[in-house]
Amino acid sequence: MILQIPLSIMNKPMKKITTVAILIMLSVAGFSFIIRPKADEMVPYPEGFRKWTHIKTGLIGPNSPAFKTTGGFHHIYANDKAMQGYTSGYFPQGSIVVFDVIDGVETDGNTAEGKRNHVDVMMKDSLRYPATGGWGFEEFKGSSKTERLLTETVRTACFNCHTKQGDYIFSVLRD
Amino acid sequence: MILQIPLSIMNKPMKKITTVAILIMLSVAGFSFIIRPKADEMVPYPEGFRKWTHIKTGLIGPNSPAFKTTGGFHHIYANDKAMQGYTSGYFPQGSIVVFDVIDGVETDGNTAEGKRNHVDVMMKDSLRYPATGGWGFEEFKGSSKTERLLTETVRTACFNCHTKQGDYIFSVLRD
Repeated sequence: MILQIPLSIMNKPMKKITTVAILIMLSVAGFSFIIRPKADEMVPYPEGFRKWTHIKTGLIGPNSPAFKTTGGFHHIYANDKAMQGYTSGYFPQGSIVVFDVIDGVETDGNTAEGKRNHVDVMMKDSLRYPATGGWGFEEFKGSSKTERLLTETVRTACFNCHTKQGDYIFSVLRD
Repeated sequence: MILQIPLSIMNKPMKKITTVAILIMLSVAGFSFIIRPKADEMVPYPEGFRKWTHIKTGLIGPNSPAFKTTGGFHHIYANDKAMQGYTSGYFPQGSIVVFDVIDGVETDGNTAEGKRNHVDVMMKDSLRYPATGGWGFEEFKGSSKTERLLTETVRTACFNCHTKQGDYIFSVLRD
């Protein structure tokens, strides 16, 4: 459908048309301001990530120096936009990568999954997170969708470490 | 749209209508016979399973008696139909479950994924696999889509063990 401008408006003096145009522009600008997220907005819980693509897995055992912070299984999951990043090298806006940390319970040489320890999230949104390469970082306790664990100091440490990698992502999609 | 039967056919003698009906029934029966898979048809390679839902993971270490056959990480993946089974307890026709076995490579207490060892598949199709609870079993070597490893003896052993579980599936979807 084509928007039709009534002929009546074309007959109005130019001054009035200019005023209307300016008012429309100001309304649009105001609306953009309202819907644009604040720069410090928190990373949301990654709803439905258990059905995203499983990128890869590792197991950090008790003999590892990393055991205290990330001991157990860690599974990495990517949403569809992040999958574009894993295949092209460029992660588009809206990419979300999850690092799901689950206790490892060993019995007779077999290690099974226990309870969830925490869920770490990286979300690409250059408007929200311009200071950290366009990525927001967060960590949720256990299976909670609301209990957040990252302090500003730890968040900065996350970013500083991830800068070592191309587009801030360490993992590579396993075949 | 409603199928309309031309009035002309209603005026034909009953004998001719019966002959036409029998011919149609025979054609349908013949077509069904053609498209029905042979009972011994092989389980196809599960194309695209790496993007299916990741059900759970385990790690079988060198101290486990199962290490020789299924040592390393095993990841279980389910297609959308099998996901109905994991949530409802009833696996519909077309359900496919994959058991992806990847070497575990340990360094300083951290175990990472190495090369793929084999891909085991269960496919629900009661027409193809009536003798094994409606499930077909197969195992593919490494990342090959064509090298099949199961002998009839091993396939029977797979089935006999899986009969211990409801609808033949051991795994439970991790949250």
